[in-house]
Amino acid sequence: MTSPDLTTRRSMQFWFDFGSTYSYLSMMRIEALAQQRDVAIEWRPFLLGAIFRSFGWDNSPFVLQKEKGAYVWRDMARQCGKYGLPWTQPSEFPRRALLPLRVALVGAQQHWSGAFCKRMMQINFVDDRHIDDPDVVARALSELDLPAEAIVAAALSEQNKRDMRAQTDEAVRRGIFGAPTFFVGEEMFWGNDRLEDAISLAAR
Amino acid sequence: MTSPDLTTRRSMQFWFDFGSTYSYLSMMRIEALAQQRDVAIEWRPFLLGAIFRSFGWDNSPFVLQKEKGAYVWRDMARQCGKYGLPWTQPSEFPRRALLPLRVALVGAQQHWSGAFCKRMMQINFVDDRHIDDPDVVARALSELDLPAEAIVAAALSEQNKRDMRAQTDEAVRRGIFGAPTFFVGEEMFWGNDRLEDAISLAAR
Repeated sequence: MTSPDLTTRRSMQFWFDFGSTYSYLSMMRIEALAQQRDVAIEWRPFLLGAIFRSFGWDNSPFVLQKEKGAYVWRDMARQCGKYGLPWTQPSEFPRRALLPLRVALVGAQQHWSGAFCKRMMQINFVDDRHIDDPDVVARALSELDLPAEAIVAAALSEQNKRDMRAQTDEAVRRGIFGAPTFFVGEEMFWGNDRLEDAISLAAR
Repeated sequence: MTSPDLTTRRSMQFWFDFGSTYSYLSMMRIEALAQQRDVAIEWRPFLLGAIFRSFGWDNSPFVLQKEKGAYVWRDMARQCGKYGLPWTQPSEFPRRALLPLRVALVGAQQHWSGAFCKRMMQINFVDDRHIDDPDVVARALSELDLPAEAIVAAALSEQNKRDMRAQTDEAVRRGIFGAPTFFVGEEMFWGNDRLEDAISLAAR
């Protein structure tokens, strides 16, 4: 969705983590919705776990608060049904996603960003497999006809690691407290339930 | 919305607290939506603060987690704009609502339940005034041509106080962790964003 005319087109930021359940819903929906409204997506992978740690939490609130956690699995199944998306409750939650997120950062300005990100989400929330695994990531890139080795090397470069930390610091600075989060200018929208509202504002 | 044929009509439970921001949105919307789908509403006032205390929290998560709290005020203003509802950010949050909730429990099976509950919400979130006040509650009842003194006396009876505690215990037992919450049979829906889904399930 990123394109040379990004600066002149209306755009929105999509902040996500591959471990985040509700980010899965938005990831699978955002490209079609944004395209319909001619809105460009700025892909913003970040480390949600670092945000939680900044609040003094050592895990996802869906794990720390068991009542909400139990609800989330039921809600996710229903939401996927509503959107026509496949769904498998992951046997491990939240899944680590550091390498895939670093790759997504490398790809954020590239044509393959959406396809790669959707594939990572599907591996986690449909195939129920680990995603923080060099083989899994490389295979996904190869299946997209991309130079997997070079991209993984770029993802693991010191510069990209610093960029990933800087991106997460920016999330903290902007007041992000969960994922997915959308920004249209300074206007923040939290949660898949606000995706349509965010796109509508961006398209105005 | 409650009526003699409640047991045969499709119905849903609406669990709310007058101090809850997102319960305000649902309170102002639920009657019209339920009527369109011929769904009866079971009014379920409960003490959200007691639920939070059962999690070890001494206040609303919107107060305890300042990033989320800051977002909620912006989101509420936008949501009210979307639904065409008036909105004033309350100068005190969360407002105590024990007496109004006890009155709502007395009225749960009565024709005036929705009108009274909406009025309490408007006083909190539009007029920005205290609601846990006998004069405010009595005036609201009188304006609905109801016997205010008798209803407040019933609300303050030992039986009704016990019933209020029992209702909140039931909320805990059912896994409720926030408000508004809707139940259609055993199916739980959390948040104003799920109101339409809950009504659709009830209407099926």
